[in-house]
Amino acid sequence: MSELAPLQPRGLASASRESGSLVQGAIQAVTDHIRTRRLKVGDTLPGEAHFSAELGVSRAVMREAFGALAALKLIDVGNGRKPRVAAIDGSVMAASLDHAVNTAQVTVPEIWDVRRTIERRTAALAAERRTEDEATAIMELAEAMGREGQSLEELTRLDIAFHQAIARASHNALFVQIVASFAQLMEVAVPAAWDTRVTEDQRTATFERHRMLARAIRDRDVAVAIVAIDDHFHTSIDEVLQRTLA
Amino acid sequence: MSELAPLQPRGLASASRESGSLVQGAIQAVTDHIRTRRLKVGDTLPGEAHFSAELGVSRAVMREAFGALAALKLIDVGNGRKPRVAAIDGSVMAASLDHAVNTAQVTVPEIWDVRRTIERRTAALAAERRTEDEATAIMELAEAMGREGQSLEELTRLDIAFHQAIARASHNALFVQIVASFAQLMEVAVPAAWDTRVTEDQRTATFERHRMLARAIRDRDVAVAIVAIDDHFHTSIDEVLQRTLA
Repeated sequence: MSELAPLQPRGLASASRESGSLVQGAIQAVTDHIRTRRLKVGDTLPGEAHFSAELGVSRAVMREAFGALAALKLIDVGNGRKPRVAAIDGSVMAASLDHAVNTAQVTVPEIWDVRRTIERRTAALAAERRTEDEATAIMELAEAMGREGQSLEELTRLDIAFHQAIARASHNALFVQIVASFAQLMEVAVPAAWDTRVTEDQRTATFERHRMLARAIRDRDVAVAIVAIDDHFHTSIDEVLQRTLA
Repeated sequence: MSELAPLQPRGLASASRESGSLVQGAIQAVTDHIRTRRLKVGDTLPGEAHFSAELGVSRAVMREAFGALAALKLIDVGNGRKPRVAAIDGSVMAASLDHAVNTAQVTVPEIWDVRRTIERRTAALAAERRTEDEATAIMELAEAMGREGQSLEELTRLDIAFHQAIARASHNALFVQIVASFAQLMEVAVPAAWDTRVTEDQRTATFERHRMLARAIRDRDVAVAIVAIDDHFHTSIDEVLQRTLA
């Protein structure tokens, strides 16, 4: 393979051009419909019958195209309801991540490096852009994590919610989706990491790191927020990786 | 909405639990099959008939499930061939990005902030980890961009290939996929950015920034690589954003 050849994703459009498949053409027609009419989330689309007639393809082909679009979360199709333009929600990327990990195409340490890279930026942006309500919510999550007698399940829920609240406070919708896509993996990794914190001192230090980050965001201190998130990943996540690799 | 509620992606598993849909259950059964048998890319899966009998669902349900799995690039289904475990290739995330931009759920400046964040890390990792061949390939791409008489199309191809070669040299498969997913958007944005570089001096400066980054990676100089990528995004990409927002 020439090094000059770009690593082109097989996009919907190019797949259509190359395979000439009827289904791919039908998928492209629906995405073109959404784009050219500048449709927004929740807007309705014509049904299978309309596209089937317009494109001169069978209902079975259109059904398959709508199924693929629904799987990719580009449209929502309900029972008998009209199809609607769908909101992105991180689940498509989460499914890719899960598959990539399960089939050894991507390792957990690789994903954690991506997480660390992304959350270093969301922490900095949150310190710059958080609203008062967002600062309060992030502080409350950090405090709730430190309360006595939390179950491991509740702690995991709070930990995931903490990182997602910071992503929302970055006010960048794509970062929000990317961080949301990590949730499924965190549901496994976070309890494993907490499990390693056997001593009370270690637990206290972990809670304090979360509070340090929350305070930096509240105080709009970008430099301390970056130090806090680096510290968080260095200590908490390295434990996850040791667990994962063990 | 409670701030404590995590932004949970509607994963394949949870969608199955909630909707009770037969198709979602069938999708889950196939992904469970892949995971529990530790299948790898290219491994074959039983066909629709097998899963249909095992799960007690109709062939139509299984066909829909296989269609969704193929759309998400978790499996490859050919004409009459056995389904196989598929390689991730960035196209699923690219389709989400395209949809999110077309329907105004995510803005181009938001995506460019994600790109800048990711590529700051791939540049640093490439400087640490690149092989000799990778260093040579990256240098050649930077040199090729600066040659006289390139068409805008060729320049765009080289620019995309340059950023993807750096991602590969990071030796993190997930970064490679994420950078690949940006290609469709770069195909539009890069020509627009080059279009703004009317003077010969500006073109020369842009080529020099690419060469500076390539040299830093070749010289294993992480600090200079980060300065070079920051400079690249600051100057080149700010022009793209001005274009996009104009």
